[in-house]
Amino acid sequence: MAAAARAALPRPYIPFSPSTRRNPRLSLAPSPIPCLRGGAAATATAALPQQQVTTRLSDVIEAQQFDRDALNEIFEVAREMEAVERGSHGAPSRVLEGYLMATLFYEPSTRTRLSFEAAMRRLGGEVLTTENAREFSSAAKGETLEDTIRTVEGYSDIIVLRHFESGAARRAADTADIPIINAGDGPGQHPTQALLDVYTIKREIGTLDGIKLGLVGDLANGRTVRSLAYLIAKYQNIKIYFVSPDVVKMKDDIKDYLNSKGVEWEESSDLLEVASKCDVIYQTRIQKERFGERIDLYEAARGKYIVDKKVLNVLPKHAVIMHPLPRLDE
Amino acid sequence: MAAAARAALPRPYIPFSPSTRRNPRLSLAPSPIPCLRGGAAATATAALPQQQVTTRLSDVIEAQQFDRDALNEIFEVAREMEAVERGSHGAPSRVLEGYLMATLFYEPSTRTRLSFEAAMRRLGGEVLTTENAREFSSAAKGETLEDTIRTVEGYSDIIVLRHFESGAARRAADTADIPIINAGDGPGQHPTQALLDVYTIKREIGTLDGIKLGLVGDLANGRTVRSLAYLIAKYQNIKIYFVSPDVVKMKDDIKDYLNSKGVEWEESSDLLEVASKCDVIYQTRIQKERFGERIDLYEAARGKYIVDKKVLNVLPKHAVIMHPLPRLDE
Amino acid sequence: MAAAARAALPRPYIPFSPSTRRNPRLSLAPSPIPCLRGGAAATATAALPQQQVTTRLSDVIEAQQFDRDALNEIFEVAREMEAVERGSHGAPSRVLEGYLMATLFYEPSTRTRLSFEAAMRRLGGEVLTTENAREFSSAAKGETLEDTIRTVEGYSDIIVLRHFESGAARRAADTADIPIINAGDGPGQHPTQALLDVYTIKREIGTLDGIKLGLVGDLANGRTVRSLAYLIAKYQNIKIYFVSPDVVKMKDDIKDYLNSKGVEWEESSDLLEVASKCDVIYQTRIQKERFGERIDLYEAARGKYIVDKKVLNVLPKHAVIMHPLPRLDE
Repeated sequence: MAAAARAALPRPYIPFSPSTRRNPRLSLAPSPIPCLRGGAAATATAALPQQQVTTRLSDVIEAQQFDRDALNEIFEVAREMEAVERGSHGAPSRVLEGYLMATLFYEPSTRTRLSFEAAMRRLGGEVLTTENAREFSSAAKGETLEDTIRTVEGYSDIIVLRHFESGAARRAADTADIPIINAGDGPGQHPTQALLDVYTIKREIGTLDGIKLGLVGDLANGRTVRSLAYLIAKYQNIKIYFVSPDVVKMKDDIKDYLNSKGVEWEESSDLLEVASKCDVIYQTRIQKERFGERIDLYEAARGKYIVDKKVLNVLPKHAVIMHPLPRLDE
Repeated sequence: MAAAARAALPRPYIPFSPSTRRNPRLSLAPSPIPCLRGGAAATATAALPQQQVTTRLSDVIEAQQFDRDALNEIFEVAREMEAVERGSHGAPSRVLEGYLMATLFYEPSTRTRLSFEAAMRRLGGEVLTTENAREFSSAAKGETLEDTIRTVEGYSDIIVLRHFESGAARRAADTADIPIINAGDGPGQHPTQALLDVYTIKREIGTLDGIKLGLVGDLANGRTVRSLAYLIAKYQNIKIYFVSPDVVKMKDDIKDYLNSKGVEWEESSDLLEVASKCDVIYQTRIQKERFGERIDLYEAARGKYIVDKKVLNVLPKHAVIMHPLPRLDE
Repeated sequence: MAAAARAALPRPYIPFSPSTRRNPRLSLAPSPIPCLRGGAAATATAALPQQQVTTRLSDVIEAQQFDRDALNEIFEVAREMEAVERGSHGAPSRVLEGYLMATLFYEPSTRTRLSFEAAMRRLGGEVLTTENAREFSSAAKGETLEDTIRTVEGYSDIIVLRHFESGAARRAADTADIPIINAGDGPGQHPTQALLDVYTIKREIGTLDGIKLGLVGDLANGRTVRSLAYLIAKYQNIKIYFVSPDVVKMKDDIKDYLNSKGVEWEESSDLLEVASKCDVIYQTRIQKERFGERIDLYEAARGKYIVDKKVLNVLPKHAVIMHPLPRLDE
């Protein structure tokens, strides 16, 4: 979306509005996460029949852009898409027929890329795929992201971007006239993963207001936990526990955001105690490479935060454990 | 297929049976090799109309799993698929419409990957593709094959796996609830290539019982010759000649298997003499990298086993020469 | 197309004729560049309804192969395809339904690859894709291009080849029975880019006869400017200005070709003066790597040939600036 067009939007950070694109093609309804995984969410959003949509989604850049109403609409479409996906064999859905999605991955991620592509294909759309745009393209020759985006938007109706730099998705959205979906930008955000995570919590626990959430593992570098914290802050009476080794603690920007939204949080080093109080334990991989030569610290930290039988035993009966993968021996 | 489900199957190593999957989607009929190449075989198997199938194929892991009846059924469907492929332009087949195949290649192989993908597309199915999952995915971060399989089976109806470790296909099949096709696992097996090879022999020579087969080249490391030996052993009055440099001779496990099945075999270093007696000469590339610093041995071996005019002259008139490629100067 | 078949063609270098292929599948009408980019051109050519076509296109190898009539036909289909592309959403075109295109890229090029794949999908066709065939295939084991082409033509109806060696496209076409499109072969040619460039010039300026064209930047190594020079030479009263650093001047083979066709050209080091006379400025990236250790020369040359405000000010009002990308700071 061009900068000029964006300025005309009614609510800052909530880019819903009648499309003001110069070249409107694929309008994303604020919508669904099919039962496929992760990034699939926003891909399928175009599937929502027009008359049911009250708002319209342009780009998916960061978790903060969604409000509760938008999230509710998204979850409703997600439920519809789950039915579509289950029934797809033999008579495939055609809701996205004629649409072409480009997956532009500057950083390889088979899991995320395939989730978007599967969603698109299950709904009748087509895909242009790039497994490793950083190495296999003009980026290696010094081309800017903006020039690449301008080219690829000439070929496709929507771009799913994975990039190694924080803020890349915003730059792409400022350049493109077609919707951009952020499928992870460096240590920045991974909003569609967070959409799926919140949707999963709602489906498993039955509610989002009032839940107690333990975020465990590498909280400094995990973009999924960052996006999840932003998103869950939209709900009432949330309590978040941060459980992580000192070197990879949750950063202040998230803590400040939670404070500004009145979300209770505390840090703890006692996984067992936290587990006994939580509805959801959300665990991420502790990244060995962040510890440099202090393998001893890594081994200690890793051993401390493993979800083992002891943790399972103290967990409330209704609670769930989630992991965005890849997992090693957490 | 889960371990529990597998145990319920009536015949060990012959995984045909009414589907016992928890989440049955794509049932493979014991079926076809379209006139496309190699791996295409198993891909197309779902195309067989239900009423014609007497048995059902879950995973394709190793050549030993097939019996003669299954092979006959497969060859029959293959013949049908050849007709489908020839007639596909203008009015494409829709027998696999609504099905999504993931090609998960941990080891790049353009030839094999494209063969499966072409078969799927020719029959109306869709494809999720991974050119180099080893380098471009969580595998690089230490994720287990099992976790990756669990994720990808959430997106797709069937997985075609190429892996660098012997036994990987079996592990994947033990994990997944959807069918797994082994498109080569390390020095292990390449069963769909062998299915195609046997089908080709039958089409070219007219019979499989009673044929004389010369396996030439690198027999120690060639997974295609290993799978072919397993498969051809299902037939009557087979005679196999092994012709290879000493350092890459056929291994004992295959020889023992042939003995146990009553298949006659002998080793020879005289390609000309063998050629004069064979119906089929099956040649594979002698892999330079196996000889280490003994380039002299490599050069000697390579020169010895080239199919040249002299070989062609002594070959029976009806005989055929086959090569799974890549070829250098054999 | 086999060498024998080619010899039977009526006009040398203009491979139009009723198909003489042994196995005719996808006949390319001399045809279109959809409004998609670059290589898209030839892909879509099969879309032309048979009765409208007077000639038939087999392979697209080099710019010289086209004459004015063929170019006119191609531009006409391109205009039709632009309409198809604009109207594709919701009711996608099916003109290429049932056809399978393989993009065989030995040298990665996201821009060019996606342009062909987008064109194919917009017109209802299917794609087999190879992002980096050089590294991820038997080519790494020493397989010849010819063997690879023979395999891939078994899977597909048309092959789009990008290769690192000049002449590779010709070799592929001599081997294959299906059409080959050259999407760039080393420092050789990039004919579909040139087709698009000429089409763009005609659309922007309104004519091709009589235009004044400034080719600026690296003219020695730029295959796009080479192909463009060959193509524009088909028109009347053309004047070409070469503006480049001494080390990357236009090579003699192009100059000789232009002389033989009676095309006026001159070399200049004064970009401003050239710009004041041109209808089209076509700029390419000056490749730093060609200057070796003489970074000083590179910096000097680069500074000299930047299209900045001064250049824009002297440019005739109707003139256009074109760049095949990637661009750095030209």
